[in-house]
Amino acid sequence: MTEDDPIGALVTLLSRLPGIGERTATRLAHHVLAGDPDYAHALGTSLAEIHDRVQQCDRCGNFCAGPLCRICRDPKRDESVICVVARVPDLSAIEKSGSFGGRYHVLHGLLAPLDGVGPDKLPLDALVARVREGEVKEIVAATPLSVEGEATALYLAQVMRPHGVRVSRIASGIPHGGELEYADQVTVGRAFEGRREL
Amino acid sequence: MTEDDPIGALVTLLSRLPGIGERTATRLAHHVLAGDPDYAHALGTSLAEIHDRVQQCDRCGNFCAGPLCRICRDPKRDESVICVVARVPDLSAIEKSGSFGGRYHVLHGLLAPLDGVGPDKLPLDALVARVREGEVKEIVAATPLSVEGEATALYLAQVMRPHGVRVSRIASGIPHGGELEYADQVTVGRAFEGRREL
Repeated sequence: MTEDDPIGALVTLLSRLPGIGERTATRLAHHVLAGDPDYAHALGTSLAEIHDRVQQCDRCGNFCAGPLCRICRDPKRDESVICVVARVPDLSAIEKSGSFGGRYHVLHGLLAPLDGVGPDKLPLDALVARVREGEVKEIVAATPLSVEGEATALYLAQVMRPHGVRVSRIASGIPHGGELEYADQVTVGRAFEGRREL
Repeated sequence: MTEDDPIGALVTLLSRLPGIGERTATRLAHHVLAGDPDYAHALGTSLAEIHDRVQQCDRCGNFCAGPLCRICRDPKRDESVICVVARVPDLSAIEKSGSFGGRYHVLHGLLAPLDGVGPDKLPLDALVARVREGEVKEIVAATPLSVEGEATALYLAQVMRPHGVRVSRIASGIPHGGELEYADQVTVGRAFEGRREL
């Protein structure tokens, strides 16, 4: 099929992207074909090479071009706090918010026993090794507020307790600008549980 | 930037696709990066090579792998009718409907004087040459029912008249299953103008 129908092959590959159905894939393929060949070549090369060009930081798992990421190389970051995230986009969101000045540890996944992801599949030994170096005082579990994110945060607290390090969890509640009327029950419940004195 | 930030470069390139904003592009880039490297490589190669792999049919402008497309090579297609379309996806839609058994001519564009697309930018000489071969009796203008599509159809009729060939226009009206209540005024007007005796 690839030999005879390169457009069909491209449509099939594009359809495997999340949120892109066959109609959108067809539209995108024809858009690329009607456009500048240099653009198609640049986009294609960028995609084909992305796995080779992007490495994971030896220390924290963040994406980077060299052995250590920008954040691990930065001597101004606070060594005493490590924020644990599930994925690199979560790290980027926290960096954009400017609300955290410590280091990170990227799990590249969450505990999901039903999908066969046990603790051995996550880089927790590497995190324990970092804690054992002695500088770390707190670990912030910034995994998602989903069932798997919560389970991973609880497991993290359990694993880290023997190492004498404090494990905290990011707050859950009504989002900024959010209406209580439209928030789900669990979120409202959490907003009450986590209330603070003014 | 490309050297230092391959993910950022990929996001920028993906954002240039129609309907894909920076957020979606970021999500797609991280999806590809978290997935199978073989898939990223296959998709990238397919995109990078698409312009080299896809040629335009020497006769009608349809996309194909060799010098002549599947339809122009098919001796069973009716030589006496040529359907003129703006883009290859329109040709594909007509083929899917099974409602046309003649040949095609793909303009790869429409008259758009304001954007600098005059008649000289469209392959109309090639169409005239095909008509001069003597077999063609009718040309069906299946350009879109937009302002530019209509203008192109009218221009086509004007150019083809001296060559003694009939030029027809596809019908405009209420789509199959469509409600009159929700149709725009122009469509309703056209449905009345184009009414046929039962």
